Order: sequence, then C-alpha cells, then structure tokens
Amino acid sequence: MPQFKTVAIIGVGLIGGSIGLAIRARHLAERVIGIGQRQTSLDRAVSVGAIDEGTTDLAAGVREAELIVICTPVELIVDLVLQTAAACPQGAIITDAGSTKARIVAEVEKLELPGEVRFVGSHPLAGSEKTGPEHAKANLLENRVVVVTPGAHSTEPAEQRVCQFWESLGAKVVQMTPQRHDEAVAYTSHLTHLVASLLAAATPEEFLPVAASGWEDTTRVAAGDVQLWQQIVDSNRSHILKAVGNFERLLNSLRVALETGDDATLVKLLEEGKSRRDIVGS
Amino acid sequence: MPQFKTVAIIGVGLIGGSIGLAIRARHLAERVIGIGQRQTSLDRAVSVGAIDEGTTDLAAGVREAELIVICTPVELIVDLVLQTAAACPQGAIITDAGSTKARIVAEVEKLELPGEVRFVGSHPLAGSEKTGPEHAKANLLENRVVVVTPGAHSTEPAEQRVCQFWESLGAKVVQMTPQRHDEAVAYTSHLTHLVASLLAAATPEEFLPVAASGWEDTTRVAAGDVQLWQQIVDSNRSHILKAVGNFERLLNSLRVALETGDDATLVKLLEEGKSRRDIVGS
Repeated sequence: MPQFKTVAIIGVGLIGGSIGLAIRARHLAERVIGIGQRQTSLDRAVSVGAIDEGTTDLAAGVREAELIVICTPVELIVDLVLQTAAACPQGAIITDAGSTKARIVAEVEKLELPGEVRFVGSHPLAGSEKTGPEHAKANLLENRVVVVTPGAHSTEPAEQRVCQFWESLGAKVVQMTPQRHDEAVAYTSHLTHLVASLLAAATPEEFLPVAASGWEDTTRVAAGDVQLWQQIVDSNRSHILKAVGNFERLLNSLRVALETGDDATLVKLLEEGKSRRDIVGS
Repeated sequence: MPQFKTVAIIGVGLIGGSIGLAIRARHLAERVIGIGQRQTSLDRAVSVGAIDEGTTDLAAGVREAELIVICTPVELIVDLVLQTAAACPQGAIITDAGSTKARIVAEVEKLELPGEVRFVGSHPLAGSEKTGPEHAKANLLENRVVVVTPGAHSTEPAEQRVCQFWESLGAKVVQMTPQRHDEAVAYTSHLTHLVASLLAAATPEEFLPVAASGWEDTTRVAAGDVQLWQQIVDSNRSHILKAVGNFERLLNSLRVALETGDDATLVKLLEEGKSRRDIVGS
C-alpha cells in the first residue's frame, strides 16, 4: 500500500529527482508530480523515471498532493511555501530540502498559512557537486541523515509523517531546532565548502599535474554550483562567520608553528584533526 | 622475461607493499626481497604476497639487488641510501618513494657513493590515510603519477631505467627538478593535508552527526599518520609556508567579504575554486 496517493516535488534537479526516483522505486506514492520552471527539464526528469508527470503550473501540480517537497535553491523556498499553501488541499504537508533552516522557518512562521496546511522544515544531508535530474540516483538518501526542524507551523502528527517519509526513503532522521541545525552545518557543510574552494583557488594551475587523490578528495565539493552556494552562504552568514573565525585562528597557530619550528604545536594540530576525523570513519 | 632478477624494497608498508604486489603480479622480477625493522611486519608482507622473503639485515637484503626502492619515512632515506650503496652490487640503482625531494637529493649528492651505484629520486603520488602492508594493493600505482627527479648522482640510463620501472607498474611518469617538485607538492599534497586537518580540528565534535559526504571527502586525508606527516611537513617547510600564506590571504578576503556582505568577492572566490577544480575532473 503506497503511503500517499500524490506527492509533488517542486524543483526536480539532483535532489528532487533522487527523491522522485526513490519514491517510485519504493512504491511510496501512486503518483509523483514534478513542478519546475522549464518543461524541457521536466521532460528529462520524466524520461529518467524521476517523476510520473511534470508541469510548470504550480497550482495545478500541487492541487491533489498530500505531500509537497520543495527542492529549489534556498532563496525561493519561502515564496513557494506560500504559493503551495494557497493551492494545495487542506491537510497537506509541505516540507523542503533547503540547506539552511532558521531563516526559512522564521519567515514561514510569519506567513498566514491556511488552517490545515502544515510546514515542516527538512534538510537531507546528501548531494553532489553534480546537478540536474540526469545525475539523480534512487539511493541518494540511503543511510544518509535528514535533519527535520520542527517550528511553529508544524504539528507533531505532521512532523511524524515527514520523519516517516524520509525514513521510508532509507534515510536516518535527526530532529533539531532550526538554529542548532544552522550552527552545525555552518561547520560540516558551509565552512567545508568554502575551505575546499579556497584550497582549489590557492593551488597554481601549473601544479595541477601533480594533484593526486588527496587533493581531488579535499577539493571535490568546490566543483559545486557557484550561484547555489552563494545563496546558501548568504542564508547562514553569521554562523559561517563564526566557523570561519575558528578555522582562521587554527590556521594562524599553524603558520606561527611552521615559522618558529614549533613541532609540538604542529603535532597537536595534526592530532586534533586526526582524532576528529577518526570519529566519523571512512 | 622479468626486467630484474632481484628487487629489494626497504620499508614494506602501504607503498612498499603495493610496489611489491605490483612487481609480483606483473612478473617484473624473479625475486622481491623486503627489508624492514621488525620481522613480524615482514612476515605479514610475505603472507599478503607483497614480497617473496623478508629480512631485517639490510646489507644481506640488498646484496644481489639490481634495483632498491626505499619506501620509509622521509627522515630515514638519506642514511638508508648510504647503507644501501655500501652493500649493493656495482651497477645497482637506488630510488625512493619520499614525499619531498630537494633535501634528500641534495644530501645524497654530498655523499660519496661507490662509482657505479646510482641514486634517482622518485615520488609516487599515491597513498592512503591507511598504513601497513595489509592495506597494500597491486593496483595502487595504476594510472597514478610518479614524479622522477634526476640529480647529480643519477645518469640518463639510470633515470630511464627508473622511469621504465614505474611505467611498468602502470604509472605515468613526470620528470621535474627536485626543487620544482617540492614547490608543487607544497600545494597539492602538504597544504591540502594541513587544511583538511584544520577543518577537521575546527569542527566541534557535537556537530559530527550532521557531517555528510562533503565533510568526509574534504577531511579524509586528515586521518593520515601524524608522525609521518610531521616529518613530511618539516622536510618542505619553506615551500609550505609560502602556500599557507597564499591560502591565508584568500581566507582573509573571504572573511572580509562575508563581514561586509560583498557578494561579488564571494562569487569570485567560489568561481576561482570551481574553475581550478573542474580542470582536474572527477
């Protein structure tokens, strides 16, 4: 028995497409409707099997959806929640896949949503430097963490339904406040991306022929979409600034240790990095 | 027909063990002798098939070797070249797998090597955060770059023989001066390692449950052996300081851009990182 008759996915790129593929592979809905700005992109999503049908008409696309998952760039999410809530059935649940949560949840809380429509913020911690539905994978969320961030517009039954939805795609759900989520991903995702970008940018092109797997791994995320990342960074600027400041202080200690031949500090920094990395495993 | 009757490998860990496995899999030598400090470790290397036999007696181990590959930590290499040269046959070629080259090559050039023994410095750009012969892989060098750094103690025939050796293991050889090599790996390997370590160290442990594949990739090398990396960093300090300084200037621009809401600079830095990363590909 499918959990849902109709699920709508707004923004059928890598993440939206992967969610669609997983819903269809696991028979969690009778119908998956993709909503996007360009019909050509929706047609590609249909052809790879990510959605049953695609439409550029948001109101028509969400009209019968019990669950709507917004997978667009973060800048667009709040406005799309409002448009969706005005057109979807009573009792529908709206969630999203935005990389930052505090601003989205706070802005949605200011909106007047119709009485029985609920918004529950989510952030699937999965992605790739690749974009577009043709890179979507049905197993993208398997064994991945999805953070669910309840807020004033959500109710416990709606939160449970959203948590169950992600779990039924194979993900592990962690609940956090939106603020705590944003503080955590400032380090694990945003500082990570910025550091990888700066390392790639700092490496002179003439030396790339001797870049081996270490450099490739460490800089992989720097290949991600620039506009997408600019928006993500802008939406979590204060937490990121704190994380950048902490990183900068460590870098400064390292440079001083190298300048003064202070091997004890060098070893201490390498050991701290290794012990933190070893917790996560390979 | 094997290229060599006897090859000796000094230091049979991940790299030395992988070289041994590859030589044996490709039948490039009639006999591979492993030389190490602990017989138990050599026995493990024999049992995984990395070497035919192991000995803790360096002079005995290199006595019949036409090629000797030194795969120990960088600190030990110069002294081992001297010991090897005193015990190996006339006409033998010594190479190494050290991560830095200028100091090793310069110090070897000061040594009085017996007339017909040649040293040609090498650096296989392959590795792993794992250590020990049990993680060795016969294909570790396949399609990887090996930098060969000729110096005053090498001759063109010896350099050619060393280049052919690495190519016959499936690697691509790049020749560079030792100084140029060290300048390049200061960015592609050493700054990379330090940045990955600092990012891991900067990430509060409480946030690790939301560390996803981006953080895992970007910090992977930070799990590497601390003592090994301290020695590598010490052996290339001046080039690394320059690379750290360049990275620090970019980080500073980024922080100022975040503080002042200067999106143009943020985008420029992200674009520089992406374009550099895109050259290397996935």
